Amino acid sequence: MRKTDRLATIRDVAALAGVSVGTASKALNDRGSLRAETRRRVQEAAERLGFQANAAARTLNTGRTYTVGMITTDSIGRFSIPLMLGAEDALGAGQMSVLLCDARDDPIREQYYLRALLTRRVDGIIVTGRRAQARAPLAVDLPVPVVYAFVSSTDPADCSVVPDEAGGAVKAVEHLRATGRRRIAHVTGPDHHTSARVRAEAAGPGLVRPPLFGEWSEAWGRQAAGMLLAEKTDFDAVFAGSDQIARGVVDTLRAAGRRVPEDVAVIGFDNWDVMVSASQPPLSSVDMDLDGLGRTAANLLLAAINGEPAPGRHVRPCRLVLRESTAVGVGGGDRV
Amino acid sequence: MRKTDRLATIRDVAALAGVSVGTASKALNDRGSLRAETRRRVQEAAERLGFQANAAARTLNTGRTYTVGMITTDSIGRFSIPLMLGAEDALGAGQMSVLLCDARDDPIREQYYLRALLTRRVDGIIVTGRRAQARAPLAVDLPVPVVYAFVSSTDPADCSVVPDEAGGAVKAVEHLRATGRRRIAHVTGPDHHTSARVRAEAAGPGLVRPPLFGEWSEAWGRQAAGMLLAEKTDFDAVFAGSDQIARGVVDTLRAAGRRVPEDVAVIGFDNWDVMVSASQPPLSSVDMDLDGLGRTAANLLLAAINGEPAPGRHVRPCRLVLRESTAVGVGGGDRV
Repeated sequence: MRKTDRLATIRDVAALAGVSVGTASKALNDRGSLRAETRRRVQEAAERLGFQANAAARTLNTGRTYTVGMITTDSIGRFSIPLMLGAEDALGAGQMSVLLCDARDDPIREQYYLRALLTRRVDGIIVTGRRAQARAPLAVDLPVPVVYAFVSSTDPADCSVVPDEAGGAVKAVEHLRATGRRRIAHVTGPDHHTSARVRAEAAGPGLVRPPLFGEWSEAWGRQAAGMLLAEKTDFDAVFAGSDQIARGVVDTLRAAGRRVPEDVAVIGFDNWDVMVSASQPPLSSVDMDLDGLGRTAANLLLAAINGEPAPGRHVRPCRLVLRESTAVGVGGGDRV
Repeated sequence: MRKTDRLATIRDVAALAGVSVGTASKALNDRGSLRAETRRRVQEAAERLGFQANAAARTLNTGRTYTVGMITTDSIGRFSIPLMLGAEDALGAGQMSVLLCDARDDPIREQYYLRALLTRRVDGIIVTGRRAQARAPLAVDLPVPVVYAFVSSTDPADCSVVPDEAGGAVKAVEHLRATGRRRIAHVTGPDHHTSARVRAEAAGPGLVRPPLFGEWSEAWGRQAAGMLLAEKTDFDAVFAGSDQIARGVVDTLRAAGRRVPEDVAVIGFDNWDVMVSASQPPLSSVDMDLDGLGRTAANLLLAAINGEPAPGRHVRPCRLVLRESTAVGVGGGDRV
């Protein structure tokens, strides 16, 4: 079913309509302010040439497959693998191949991988990492488009897709308030870590005490819960910066005779299946939708490959996944 | 420092010595039974041509870099990522690039990735997966060498590197016996899972009761420990088929007032940092040395790329990592 005729590109459309590629793109994507006459001229040219603006649709028609390099600094794989799966899912199986490279936070290794990918003629590159924060661009003047996912580029002309971590934190705290909790504590990772800071700030000034910064571990969650109990803070909810911290908090509260969720509601961040399901009770959590981030990144990359780049920072919402640790009106309870 | 002269290969050495490539390889690697005269003739030829048998040394001298495709079925990344890091470490940074592809247990996706890697001219392929078991070969008559790591190929002519899971299980049980435990129970994953079966068989007939097969989760560990307590099995140790199961066992034992390790020693499998360190107390565990498996796989692949394939099943030992959950003579204890 492979067509041998070269398909029209946006450049062909622009040439026929007598406009720039940028203008043609705006006209076809209904973006920006254009004169109605210009928009109509571009649309007519596109129609005449059989041009299809939608990258996914075009790929399906041409039978073309894309190979994308993904460079990550996430040695653990916990963040990069869901992103990779999402990116692959942006098109059907076999229409996009994602080659994952682990640069391990090492700029020299990153440049080696970049060269390896370019030598092997990938169509585009997705850059990701363990930390949702801004980083220096991969390189300048690359021959293929680059999209940053989860991490973002410090260059506003680059295309980045990031989770709305602040929005996620607000959702967590608002849910606790909506279910009657009034005295909320926040326990999170190190204060030099962007994600910890952003989430803590978004959790707001209405917390029962200043956020407890520490590390991303269950041990810290247990320790922090012990501190809250020892200082006799009167609290009825804990918003934790990660599921591991949340699980540590829950274990220590239960060991001290506080019921979760009856006495204290606890909510985590990440929605990491291993943690949320093993916790007793199972944890409510904020999900950054890494899979969706990966899909969006792949779609933006395909668009860029097809001459329709979308520079800037694209922010995607987090969603709340509710389980027993924040349940309302739980009867009985399981006092330790 | 890049040499422009083509370096001698093992084929050149064999031709000059008037022997087959296999014989030359044996002579240079001190393997197999050869007449002393043949060995000497090959060594002289190698010396005359400046041939270096060691792939790593040769790479360093030529400045050549290798790109290896790694195809995995491990969507979680928990097994494939350490393997990948080990493979990269077989040579220095930038001398080996590993492109990871996730085939998701889907044969069609696997063939797509295989094609994508071959089109992009990788030097070789490492196949891995979530389960240490035999699988059908990737394909026949591939233009590049393939090494199976963690998984193995059903074709004995293929090269596979696998962990000695049975040996690991024996080490775990022997350690428990050596520290005075006599009544050992075994709780593990599903009995249709090769790893669960192999480890359970190796744990031996001397167990206090038949192995408890279930699933690879903390919840199952908790449930199984509850069963052991309810049926009034007299046990002083639990060997668990995974760290998640071990952690579940520990939590239920402690909640029931049994001290770990004083009353019951518990040992896990995988040495997964997240689990072993968060457990209370920290877990002793069997480490399959995935990093080492990756390094060995990469070295075998490099050798094969350089004309020295090593077919067959290469078994690497597991090692025991001891922590508090099997400690001897722990004073005090932390009774719940």
